[in-house]
Amino acid sequence: MSILPKSIADLIDSFSAMPGVGKKSAKRMAFYVLKAGRDEAVNMAKAIINVKDRIYHCSECHNIAENDPCNICRDPKRDRTQICVVEDAMDLLAIENTANYRGLYHVLGGVISPLNGIGPDNLNITDLLHRSEKGVKEVILALNSTRDGETTEMFLSKMLSTKGVKVTRLAHGLPVGTNLEFADETTLIRALEGRTNIL
Amino acid sequence: MSILPKSIADLIDSFSAMPGVGKKSAKRMAFYVLKAGRDEAVNMAKAIINVKDRIYHCSECHNIAENDPCNICRDPKRDRTQICVVEDAMDLLAIENTANYRGLYHVLGGVISPLNGIGPDNLNITDLLHRSEKGVKEVILALNSTRDGETTEMFLSKMLSTKGVKVTRLAHGLPVGTNLEFADETTLIRALEGRTNIL
Repeated sequence: MSILPKSIADLIDSFSAMPGVGKKSAKRMAFYVLKAGRDEAVNMAKAIINVKDRIYHCSECHNIAENDPCNICRDPKRDRTQICVVEDAMDLLAIENTANYRGLYHVLGGVISPLNGIGPDNLNITDLLHRSEKGVKEVILALNSTRDGETTEMFLSKMLSTKGVKVTRLAHGLPVGTNLEFADETTLIRALEGRTNIL
Repeated sequence: MSILPKSIADLIDSFSAMPGVGKKSAKRMAFYVLKAGRDEAVNMAKAIINVKDRIYHCSECHNIAENDPCNICRDPKRDRTQICVVEDAMDLLAIENTANYRGLYHVLGGVISPLNGIGPDNLNITDLLHRSEKGVKEVILALNSTRDGETTEMFLSKMLSTKGVKVTRLAHGLPVGTNLEFADETTLIRALEGRTNIL
């Protein structure tokens, strides 16, 4: 690609560092910027800098926010007796988009992962334990069902059990609308184990 | 998505305006920027602005370049008797990446498209005619085989025929390595029409 002007090549490199963006997509994106109006390019550049300058982590739940506490923590309509624990802000967003949960959140900032050198001290766990002492009745663990996620769930449920709060986790089972024959075995086993009464 | 901080939502909007970037990809990209170091984000923002500030069009071939004439036009090793006509800089790059063409290029900046209000005057055609008078022996039309591309080829070949240069176009036929049974009919017809002697 040495034929490309350096500034285009630099932008392609910069874009292709992002997840899910290959060299070809990055090239198409860079040419889009090249053809776009100057205002649009300036706005994109500003948006990138704004994200770095304006986004903080809520001091209560560690969610990303432009104010502290975040809009969820300061919302008087949220149920303060429930805390849903998630790995990161994107998982929080996924649950929030269901519009079905009205409690608070707690963003761990990852999961315990000995192989990657991430221990309990690297996560927002101490804060979670403090928060669970303040009138919380239920902590819902909504971590991803990876090995590290399940280790973290075990660790958290042990720590939280000493605080006298109910600890639950998201149900595993068949995704709604999918065909049973296409489900993987682990999911089917979990779906069988977690079977519920219908009558 | 109203739950997202405004600066993140703005960045997602900005990214998703680019071709091939959906809402989900844009979200993943915006969260990548959020997690990335400040330096990396600043570099990306600068790269965007640099593309707008430093890229010009070569006054000879209209290719994108950081200097004028561009590196191809000023390269003494290129064959100045051949000009390959392409729609845009990405098409030029595709041909250049084959490392099989040593002539010059001419970037039209699009194709004639009455439906989109693009006529010959909106393209770099006058320049091409001027250039073809200066010792050029062959003009290779390498436009995309859309209806507008073929209309433009017809138009250019008529204009160029008055200049006494040879006008050729890229061969149509079966892509190398593909199975004949999967070729579309138009491609097969072109491949038959363009059949070549092997003995």
